[in-house]
Amino acid sequence: MSISASPRSASKRVSDLLGQMTLDEKLAQISSYFIYDLQTKGQLDQSKIEEKLRDGVGQITRLAGASTLDPQSAAKTANSIQRFLVERTRLGIPAIVHEECCSGAMVLGGSTYPEVLGLAGTFQPELAEQMTTVIRKQLRAIGAHQGLAPVLDVARDPRWGRIEETFGEDPTLVSHFGVAYIRGLQGHDLTEGVMATGKHFVGHSLSQGGLNCGPVHVGLHELWDVYLAPFQAAIRDANLASIMNAYPELDGEVVAASRRILTDLLRGTLGFDGLVVSDYEAINMIHDFHRMAPDKPTAACLALNAGIDVELPTTVYYGQPLQAALESGEISLELVDVAVCRHLQKKFELGLFENPYVDEDRIYEVYETAEQRSLARELARKSMVLLKNDGLLPLKKSVKTLAVIGPNAHDGRNQLGDYSYAAMASLMQFTKPENSSFVEIDSAVLAEHEIKVVTTLAAIREVVSTNTKVLYAKGCDNLDSDRSGFDEALKTAEQADVVVLVLGDRSGMIPSCTTGETRDSVDLRLPGVQEEFAKVILATGKPVAVVLVNGRPFAIPWLDESANAILEAWLPGEEG
Amino acid sequence: MSISASPRSASKRVSDLLGQMTLDEKLAQISSYFIYDLQTKGQLDQSKIEEKLRDGVGQITRLAGASTLDPQSAAKTANSIQRFLVERTRLGIPAIVHEECCSGAMVLGGSTYPEVLGLAGTFQPELAEQMTTVIRKQLRAIGAHQGLAPVLDVARDPRWGRIEETFGEDPTLVSHFGVAYIRGLQGHDLTEGVMATGKHFVGHSLSQGGLNCGPVHVGLHELWDVYLAPFQAAIRDANLASIMNAYPELDGEVVAASRRILTDLLRGTLGFDGLVVSDYEAINMIHDFHRMAPDKPTAACLALNAGIDVELPTTVYYGQPLQAALESGEISLELVDVAVCRHLQKKFELGLFENPYVDEDRIYEVYETAEQRSLARELARKSMVLLKNDGLLPLKKSVKTLAVIGPNAHDGRNQLGDYSYAAMASLMQFTKPENSSFVEIDSAVLAEHEIKVVTTLAAIREVVSTNTKVLYAKGCDNLDSDRSGFDEALKTAEQADVVVLVLGDRSGMIPSCTTGETRDSVDLRLPGVQEEFAKVILATGKPVAVVLVNGRPFAIPWLDESANAILEAWLPGEEG
Repeated sequence: MSISASPRSASKRVSDLLGQMTLDEKLAQISSYFIYDLQTKGQLDQSKIEEKLRDGVGQITRLAGASTLDPQSAAKTANSIQRFLVERTRLGIPAIVHEECCSGAMVLGGSTYPEVLGLAGTFQPELAEQMTTVIRKQLRAIGAHQGLAPVLDVARDPRWGRIEETFGEDPTLVSHFGVAYIRGLQGHDLTEGVMATGKHFVGHSLSQGGLNCGPVHVGLHELWDVYLAPFQAAIRDANLASIMNAYPELDGEVVAASRRILTDLLRGTLGFDGLVVSDYEAINMIHDFHRMAPDKPTAACLALNAGIDVELPTTVYYGQPLQAALESGEISLELVDVAVCRHLQKKFELGLFENPYVDEDRIYEVYETAEQRSLARELARKSMVLLKNDGLLPLKKSVKTLAVIGPNAHDGRNQLGDYSYAAMASLMQFTKPENSSFVEIDSAVLAEHEIKVVTTLAAIREVVSTNTKVLYAKGCDNLDSDRSGFDEALKTAEQADVVVLVLGDRSGMIPSCTTGETRDSVDLRLPGVQEEFAKVILATGKPVAVVLVNGRPFAIPWLDESANAILEAWLPGEEG
Repeated sequence: MSISASPRSASKRVSDLLGQMTLDEKLAQISSYFIYDLQTKGQLDQSKIEEKLRDGVGQITRLAGASTLDPQSAAKTANSIQRFLVERTRLGIPAIVHEECCSGAMVLGGSTYPEVLGLAGTFQPELAEQMTTVIRKQLRAIGAHQGLAPVLDVARDPRWGRIEETFGEDPTLVSHFGVAYIRGLQGHDLTEGVMATGKHFVGHSLSQGGLNCGPVHVGLHELWDVYLAPFQAAIRDANLASIMNAYPELDGEVVAASRRILTDLLRGTLGFDGLVVSDYEAINMIHDFHRMAPDKPTAACLALNAGIDVELPTTVYYGQPLQAALESGEISLELVDVAVCRHLQKKFELGLFENPYVDEDRIYEVYETAEQRSLARELARKSMVLLKNDGLLPLKKSVKTLAVIGPNAHDGRNQLGDYSYAAMASLMQFTKPENSSFVEIDSAVLAEHEIKVVTTLAAIREVVSTNTKVLYAKGCDNLDSDRSGFDEALKTAEQADVVVLVLGDRSGMIPSCTTGETRDSVDLRLPGVQEEFAKVILATGKPVAVVLVNGRPFAIPWLDESANAILEAWLPGEEG
């Protein structure tokens, strides 16, 4: 057994280290920076590193996920940062680099598997473990140590935009998939594993009206029977390394500020002994959303006292405001020490002190391999659900003309979930964080490096008989109300013997998206003018097989009545 | 102090009486019959009375509210039933007669005040006490002793059809109105009062999706802060005599079967010592809706053990099934005794043993008096809320032609709430209970005896200057999609200088209704084609004052933008 893998020894090393630390060094360990906080115009900026990391740092946020770095460049950047920390700070403590990885490493060029709601539909948790084994290797290869997944929320309100990120509505199924997901991601030993982060503790998915941060009305029976069950399983059966708090208030109690929830319940009752990270800006929200704290120092104290060990994604509250609270005696240093120790403990368990660097030249052994592609295809196939088939499917090889129509027929981007690199890149290009590499990059350049996605149209063209003519028309957008493409699509359908109509969502966090975080919905209709469009195509009387590429269930009784076949593909990923 | 008013003496009399009772007589005391269970073709049937009431009976259900009896006939009928019980049963125990009285005695010809949601908008709880003082007198006059009101549910989901029956969304306001309502109804002394029934204990109004019996997701903080508060106030400050259970499950616990809720919480923690009545068919629902009991005896045991002292509206579970459970030892006779004692206790407190009869000749001293009419007008005026006014209101006397348009402009029935006699009569005529007087009665005959309602059109005609010409067109129905009246209404509007457009709901429990119990809604739009109709009228460019006659809030930003004035009248009652 290596030294780092021994909890006893790690614990001794943690306390030795803590004894040497100044207050500044302690606060640095419970803080974090976005990769672009350390960049200028998309390039690492040595002067920023020297200023911000001089006392060390707890975590680096989305080194690859919030940058346009390809995997090898990400690895090099990670090594540069760690080298500074090891060689140029007093105590030489490396950082944990965390990334997102809901259904694939959220990294430029990372494998992108079916969004996990579809994966759960396979009822084969071992597939999640296979998927996260790939994620673990891809993240570790570029120097990342923590993945902000899995979502262990039980999906009970399909209006919630994040339904796609969950393993569905059944606590038992969520538990099994959660455990398998964590096992694959963490591996046998954290020295080669990626810390999984169970989120969002607890109750996030029951937010009122399906609104992402709405208050959660829940009682103890339901909390235990439904929402705590997957966390309980993950802690008990998968040795979950990290937990992220939920944003909302739970029965009137703001989770991020609740010691009763994040310490008494989580650690005391459920026996969790890992690291609690804040959801992004959750500490701010105690102050400026929940209005529970009159100022920043109070919010920082509430969060630390509740049991949030590290502030993500960047240092705001656990910096100067927490320092002010310590100075004024509003909070005790012992609470800081507890959080620092938990963080250091994980750094030891991850083997960061022994091996802070990655091999920059062997990255591509674990990116875009044939096995990864093959797994992507297997998962996509197994995650699809045939909702209806009057005999039209499988399509006959003898079909002479096949029309493939619809907004999701030939748009690879629309096959990916909200925490895919492509979706997040759209958000970054939309919000343009200062100094990030997204400010100046051309989206076409970015697309060139992104994972290649096989669309329905491309796949059909590949497999049809040489005698089959394949036509295509988009018809309409997912959300936009422009009907100008209806005519061409109608004509295309009229020329065909069979129509494959591919409808659904575009997942992501910007206004043009129809599912994903912050894209909550008031109803479960097909978004935009798609219902109207589908009715135009169906009115041709041609045999129609509908393929739904979407993140949350639709209420479509009218489609069930009129289409010949309906295939629910969810968000099937790169090989969908 | 009279004997009956002394709790000590009543308690002694209760135990003396209990000691003399057979099992059949005890079960009869916790049971009830609908008035029509004792009728044949709408007439009291002596043979049914002899068969069903031979051992006595706990309550008679809606003697006036579920019949077509005018007040005097109701009083005579009540006296006949009591006379049988007193003179022809072994122990001579009179029955409690209960009626509904949400915003007026639900009796043919009873005063019908503004639905209480509007009343709460006055912010003057003393008006509720004035209203229920009338209700008390009208009910007592016809031999009724218990009113199944007030609704103490705090309205938090406006999709719920019963929003109109509540005092709104604020627990403090609901508490104040609840206390005032109960004081007026119960009076200073129950010997001249009507037992109030706080309902629905507890949490009914938070049913999922606003669906009447949907599961309630609620935690202890919210339960205490919001939903229990009005009950706590009513028990503490108004000596509430009776409580009705809520239908739903509360955090997974079926209320009607929960001793923890109906006994430990209600009696133990809140200190309630009155009578708990089942909501109609709530005991059945343990078995056939919640599927919590495999058979009727088990459901009866669960309800009795939980603390439901009497089954309403008619004897199903507390009859033979409970008897079977007692015989098989599934439940102890002591629990029956407790419920019987509570019921007898109330009968003593109500003075029923001393004075079971009413004076049949003095009924009309308390029906349709000038003071009652005047109060109805005062309450209606005060309950209205002017949401917008660009100066159009008050209308000038100089207006030459005034068009009064819309489905609620001249339909008195639509000014009444779901527990008005008129609304309930529609339900009775729709469902036609066997042997009830509704089976054969002509609705026109009934209407003739019902309380007279002043419509917007009639009121306007009465008050306008003699130089003002008043035109009327209905335009459309509340819910029906028929647009054939649009044209006439449009022409009418075009002839006018000013349009008063009266839109809104029809309250009640049948499919043509748009608000009221079981009329839950998926959204808050104006129902039917009213939005489309309103836009047609608004497009004329005429000055338009909109009057909303409705039971729950509408989401009408488009109307706010285009109408000159909007008056929220809620369901304003007979003088609306």
